[in-house]
Amino acid sequence: MRPLTKLLEAIGGPQAAAAAEAQAHLDTLTKPPGSLGRLEELAVRLAAIGGRVPRVSAPVIFTFAADHGVVAEGVSAYPQSVTAQMVENFLRGGAAVNVLARQAGARVVVADFGVAAPLGERPGLVARRAGPGTHNMAVGPAMTREQAAAAIEAGAALAGEAIDAGADLLGTGEMGIGNTTAASAITAVITGADPDAVTGRGTGLDATARAHKVAVVRRALEVNRPAADDGLDVLAKVGGFEIAGLAGVMLAGAARRVPVALDGFIAGAAALVAVTLAPAARHALLASHRSAEPGHAVALAHLGLAPYLDLELRLGEGTGAALFVHLVRAAAAIYGEMATFKSAGVDGPV
Amino acid sequence: MRPLTKLLEAIGGPQAAAAAEAQAHLDTLTKPPGSLGRLEELAVRLAAIGGRVPRVSAPVIFTFAADHGVVAEGVSAYPQSVTAQMVENFLRGGAAVNVLARQAGARVVVADFGVAAPLGERPGLVARRAGPGTHNMAVGPAMTREQAAAAIEAGAALAGEAIDAGADLLGTGEMGIGNTTAASAITAVITGADPDAVTGRGTGLDATARAHKVAVVRRALEVNRPAADDGLDVLAKVGGFEIAGLAGVMLAGAARRVPVALDGFIAGAAALVAVTLAPAARHALLASHRSAEPGHAVALAHLGLAPYLDLELRLGEGTGAALFVHLVRAAAAIYGEMATFKSAGVDGPV
Repeated sequence: MRPLTKLLEAIGGPQAAAAAEAQAHLDTLTKPPGSLGRLEELAVRLAAIGGRVPRVSAPVIFTFAADHGVVAEGVSAYPQSVTAQMVENFLRGGAAVNVLARQAGARVVVADFGVAAPLGERPGLVARRAGPGTHNMAVGPAMTREQAAAAIEAGAALAGEAIDAGADLLGTGEMGIGNTTAASAITAVITGADPDAVTGRGTGLDATARAHKVAVVRRALEVNRPAADDGLDVLAKVGGFEIAGLAGVMLAGAARRVPVALDGFIAGAAALVAVTLAPAARHALLASHRSAEPGHAVALAHLGLAPYLDLELRLGEGTGAALFVHLVRAAAAIYGEMATFKSAGVDGPV
Repeated sequence: MRPLTKLLEAIGGPQAAAAAEAQAHLDTLTKPPGSLGRLEELAVRLAAIGGRVPRVSAPVIFTFAADHGVVAEGVSAYPQSVTAQMVENFLRGGAAVNVLARQAGARVVVADFGVAAPLGERPGLVARRAGPGTHNMAVGPAMTREQAAAAIEAGAALAGEAIDAGADLLGTGEMGIGNTTAASAITAVITGADPDAVTGRGTGLDATARAHKVAVVRRALEVNRPAADDGLDVLAKVGGFEIAGLAGVMLAGAARRVPVALDGFIAGAAALVAVTLAPAARHALLASHRSAEPGHAVALAHLGLAPYLDLELRLGEGTGAALFVHLVRAAAAIYGEMATFKSAGVDGPV
């Protein structure tokens, strides 16, 4: 049995008993019931995922990079060289995700899933290259089905290693010039939305360039005709190597009962793929924020996930997931550190 | 000249040059311009308030407690005894604001502005009592105009001491059974909204009890007829001692150019009073979150402030301000720690 098959079979649903116990405990704490709103809901979800008291002490953010052949169609405001340059920036700690992960006490795993220009060996860089970037999806499949499956497995293996080393919250991030185009195509296929509704300005396109990007997404879907109910087919035809890797992280988190904090639009597209492969994985996914990319809200609605933050972020890298770590820590701290009405001698309702 | 007059005269507007410089710096960092959304906007606002590079190293949250005579009308789900009991809980570190402030590295200043049952001397408790709770505003003024002014001055003095000791971000929180009723009355007067639109379920009223609370707010406004353009009159007639104290914190922050993170609905009402007294104070106020109390959105719209978090919180105490500290730290870290396109050798747009 190949690792992916085994992974998908290991994914179960939420732990209802742990969730009920968590809710009961929250209602004993010195606050009106439910008055901490989504922090309480988050604590209950953490309990349902992990099957234990909510806790987070070792968050890890996976920032996977890869290039996209579709940039040949002129869909990005930035040149392809930026993908590799940003990986170097991640390794030096100067990118936004490094800054926000440091602040949140999260480790960042930077992996090359297929950057066009090989980066060579670098301290701190994990090489999981599936190729020198994907093929141009506007003229044919982005990758083979085998490449898609292998990249998912590679991402899952990295997540598994982190969990073995103690990671108790996984975050997903990415870098890849052109990857909002792939995310739009994936989102259109799996949600059934029109490409125009799920294609945004990416790193800063003007209205004309965005219209061209919509046309490229349409062409990719017409040329490839991906099957909406077959996650591997969607990934192979209009996906990306880093997107496949992130889907692997999500599936591994779900299989190992470790919560996964999604980042923005690209992570949302990876989540659509993951949930198409294993619908039960959905309960392990937390939508850290809603991105300014219009397709993200469509993806989250399809996933049935309500975002926790809404800060008009559209950077990716794992920046939203890093910011969200504070809320996860807050939910766990509320759960574990607050006094109860009884212990504090506080009267209940009249 | 009394301290309040002096305080109001010291309040100036935002520093446009520092804001422009901050924006220019943000645009050199390795990210598409504006892609960190409201974190960037927050960094610029911090620069505009402080007139310097955004920085936060010593946040202080002011949790002021007082009782409200209007509880005699049966407007709260909890007995008045809870105000004093929760102050004890704050002092022992077991309340939600203690937990969240610890996580955020913020100091909490707990002050008694007029709890009904005197608490006596307690380590960590600051006594600034204006009386044993306000009078019942449904039958006459909650306090005198002199009491309102003195409580503002007391809050401002506490904030001033904290700033002298290095505080570079002020947060506002409160505890006072009955204080959402006062906040609804203040919000109705100053924004011109109907009491029904700005009166919520507080700590957990059912629909019938909420309707009664609306009627009590209407009665308080009819009996007292506060003047919407006179903040001291509004505060004296339908306010609360802790609300006055928080308005003082806000005015002191604005006068000393230290940003003030508002908490929820009660803080929003205090901000309406503060801005009525000194319109220029508005630029120093940051809306940490939008509360589940319906009046809060009305207050924020009147203030022209967009909330950063929306987590359905309705606890108060300063919990939303404490959660927001992470975002302020994030904005400052992004500003101060990210690489520039030039330093990182990353290409710009094509």
